[in-house]
Amino acid sequence: MSENEFPQSPNIDTDAPVERRRRTGGRGADRSRKGAGSSKYLHLVNTIAKSTVLTEEALEAIHEASLTILEEIGMDVILPEARQRMKAAGADVTAGTDRVRFDRGLIMDMISSVPSGFTMHARNPIRNVQIGGNNLVFAQIASAPFVADREGGRRAGNQEDYRKLVKLAQSYDIIHTTGGYPVEPIDIHASVRHLDCLSDMVKLTDKVFHCYSLGQQRNIDALEIARIGRGITAEQMEREPSLFTIINTSSPLRLDGPMLQGIIEMSSRNQVVVVTPFTLAGAMAPVTIAGAVVQQNAEALAGIAFTQMVRRGAPVMYGGFTSNVDMKTGAPAFGTPEYMKAVIAGGQLARRYGIPYRTSNTNASNTLDAQAAYESALSLWALTQGGGNFIMHSAGWSEGGLTASFEKFILDVDMLQMVAEFLTPLDVSEDALGLDAVRDVGPGGHYFGTAHTLSRYETAFYSPILSDWRNFETWTEAGRPTTYDHANRVFKEKLNEYEKPPLDPAVEEELDAFVARRKAEGGVPTDF
Amino acid sequence: MSENEFPQSPNIDTDAPVERRRRTGGRGADRSRKGAGSSKYLHLVNTIAKSTVLTEEALEAIHEASLTILEEIGMDVILPEARQRMKAAGADVTAGTDRVRFDRGLIMDMISSVPSGFTMHARNPIRNVQIGGNNLVFAQIASAPFVADREGGRRAGNQEDYRKLVKLAQSYDIIHTTGGYPVEPIDIHASVRHLDCLSDMVKLTDKVFHCYSLGQQRNIDALEIARIGRGITAEQMEREPSLFTIINTSSPLRLDGPMLQGIIEMSSRNQVVVVTPFTLAGAMAPVTIAGAVVQQNAEALAGIAFTQMVRRGAPVMYGGFTSNVDMKTGAPAFGTPEYMKAVIAGGQLARRYGIPYRTSNTNASNTLDAQAAYESALSLWALTQGGGNFIMHSAGWSEGGLTASFEKFILDVDMLQMVAEFLTPLDVSEDALGLDAVRDVGPGGHYFGTAHTLSRYETAFYSPILSDWRNFETWTEAGRPTTYDHANRVFKEKLNEYEKPPLDPAVEEELDAFVARRKAEGGVPTDF
Repeated sequence: MSENEFPQSPNIDTDAPVERRRRTGGRGADRSRKGAGSSKYLHLVNTIAKSTVLTEEALEAIHEASLTILEEIGMDVILPEARQRMKAAGADVTAGTDRVRFDRGLIMDMISSVPSGFTMHARNPIRNVQIGGNNLVFAQIASAPFVADREGGRRAGNQEDYRKLVKLAQSYDIIHTTGGYPVEPIDIHASVRHLDCLSDMVKLTDKVFHCYSLGQQRNIDALEIARIGRGITAEQMEREPSLFTIINTSSPLRLDGPMLQGIIEMSSRNQVVVVTPFTLAGAMAPVTIAGAVVQQNAEALAGIAFTQMVRRGAPVMYGGFTSNVDMKTGAPAFGTPEYMKAVIAGGQLARRYGIPYRTSNTNASNTLDAQAAYESALSLWALTQGGGNFIMHSAGWSEGGLTASFEKFILDVDMLQMVAEFLTPLDVSEDALGLDAVRDVGPGGHYFGTAHTLSRYETAFYSPILSDWRNFETWTEAGRPTTYDHANRVFKEKLNEYEKPPLDPAVEEELDAFVARRKAEGGVPTDF
Repeated sequence: MSENEFPQSPNIDTDAPVERRRRTGGRGADRSRKGAGSSKYLHLVNTIAKSTVLTEEALEAIHEASLTILEEIGMDVILPEARQRMKAAGADVTAGTDRVRFDRGLIMDMISSVPSGFTMHARNPIRNVQIGGNNLVFAQIASAPFVADREGGRRAGNQEDYRKLVKLAQSYDIIHTTGGYPVEPIDIHASVRHLDCLSDMVKLTDKVFHCYSLGQQRNIDALEIARIGRGITAEQMEREPSLFTIINTSSPLRLDGPMLQGIIEMSSRNQVVVVTPFTLAGAMAPVTIAGAVVQQNAEALAGIAFTQMVRRGAPVMYGGFTSNVDMKTGAPAFGTPEYMKAVIAGGQLARRYGIPYRTSNTNASNTLDAQAAYESALSLWALTQGGGNFIMHSAGWSEGGLTASFEKFILDVDMLQMVAEFLTPLDVSEDALGLDAVRDVGPGGHYFGTAHTLSRYETAFYSPILSDWRNFETWTEAGRPTTYDHANRVFKEKLNEYEKPPLDPAVEEELDAFVARRKAEGGVPTDF
């Protein structure tokens, strides 16, 4: 009477050419989806009109300012081979220094050969992901030094937690790829860590994975592990990008040796490079969001241009990671209004260049509280409305990326699924409009038991993993569990239900032999 | 190196004709903003391009289906006077029943005189709010039967908590109006409750307030209290809408007597009516979101048309409150993907008719946990992108509206301010682009101490009320406070800082005399 106001549907991949064929011996397709009931999340398409925070004029002003930076100031390029390749492509290399300047024509020429979309191939073809256009791909958290769950507290990364987090990534279709090591397992020696970790990626998941660009040999080993996992030749892999690497610039305006080497190794073999400046406004970039985005754009364009100097047409993404700092402490802040604007501005720039856009699901909370949720939700708002294509750190990121949280992983999976459901087109068929149901019920009735309701009620709405919709009394009898409590229970249940995806025994044997040989050779040199 | 990715500006009211003139004796303007530092939140304009979930064809299909409902099925109208007015306007009233049918031409003719925007006048003119267009107005929670804070737990509504919540609404400029009783103070007898509560609204705040349509006399008393509070004549008040009421239909397809009476009392005096069907898909409306929105639209149009039958040009808003139920328990769910779509669809319909759009900031959590935050954040996402003009329950709504939470109020204020900051146009001036700062710092430097940073760092970014960005160690030393802990501290601090807004003694005297007289007369009859 007065305002006492208490009291579906698969995301169709219209853009994505889903490949249904299976590779020989691959029986994993259906079994890997067992129990999830969520194969509808395998390919997401975001057809919502993209939001903007920049007018056309402002977009061009940022574009021009970033080209001016590259032309006039340039970048420090800390690898002789890279400088030589840049010089050969027409860049202005100052002899005896690391400084390289790029004129606008050179940058725009190089950018012109970047593909607007491509497929990343997994060892299980139903896990292939489409990058670019309206496709939306979620990657798990990467690179946290710490890991946490409620019982075990916050601890240094280790192999056991690494494996658990990788298993969780496999357990939900909404997590389309892993994103690197969800946590850094420092109990494995650095010389062989990549061998064990990437071998686990092949065995514990059937999804696309990532390789760190931390020296040429690591890239080469990762390429071989990805090839073995897919059971294909090097030639086929060169036609079918199957591995990706994140290339962070050292902001401001520097590209370090291992990053440049990573571009050379990956782009030359037609594998995927994601160039991501990390431009915190007020720290490594100007304190204004517009200024930080200008610098982000300059650095991203330089890295992307270099991929095309290495190999015209090599697949690459435009990464944006601009946020602000807490001006009281200098600590990085995430999921802020400023972050939202930077994410949307980055999407406008990436679309201007026709390059797939990578961004992130971020937050800076130290625990799984309301802050963790609102900062992540604001990130998801911006990256969805801003047209993100490839979303790093989609699930598990806590404490500004310092900690991989098991509970946060589940919270994020739930929120990602809600985003997917939101993006599902509304059914406006005549039957959905429900005029006959309204006729049947009429004024003053209710719809609980009608045929229109009964035929739909099981699938009508998204059923969240965590939301507790019990009334206050029932919830109190249950001990007043919070989202944190539910997430803690769910991640353990999910780990218990985990099933290894099928792997051809011949592939597993080849993989084990390769890892054993490379370990016997001592892995990679470490001087740190 | 690798992906170890850790590590302003007022919202200008371009649309809103802010009235800076002061009423006689009104010294409150500046003092009421004292300490807030947030006068930039007084008038918000949402210029972001509105999102859509309906194609033009789908929008028309919903429009036509709702008109078919009104024409063919009609509404039950539980007030003889209302049926007579409808008949006089051309509706088809079935003699001896409550049923009224409206042909499409009649509805569209009535809708045509609804103003697309108007001002709601507060006793302090700087608190006037602009309704419609791109203006965005946040109203506090209304009508919760329970109230909660951490120490006191969940308890029945009472006058003391009512007053505290009203004081909090006064304390933040981002809360533009109150929205009704934030909690129902059941310790005040129902016959005089509206007199005490509305008198408090005038004395404890200087913002626009709401009157419940629960019988003619309550409306008449509220109108008089609003008039006295503004110190104006009835004639001036009739020119300047100063009071609003929420009219909920009794879904499906019924308008109850007190609601109809409320429309008659308010619209005939040119005061603001907000017609809001509460159409839970699968309960009081079809289980499909499209069907529930069809029914919402039919009911809203009927109520809005009636306001125009009472007085052509009377100010009215289109209210949408469609959500889904938890199909396992039948409990209402809020802040869901389905809610998001319904909010955006409602915005498309309201804009189609050129009528200001009211929607809500909702969630169904029983406590201040991650769920409370993500459901509210998803609501804010939808209502911002969907073009909501007047947002009920913006702050404090908990437990699906059953409880007004002090801590949730603060959390919501913080999130509303973040929305306002997000909507602030990005500064893309040459100075903001920061080329000179990039030149100064160059490759490999940092921006912490530069002039560009130092001149801006205090105001560069939004400084959240609750977000805890301390590092893990410092946060641990502080006892690991959660958002809930911070919100609990802040609401008490804010209440301690509360200052009553200045009120002309003559106005206060007149108000007290009116309330005393009406109480002596016995208030209003209660038969419940």
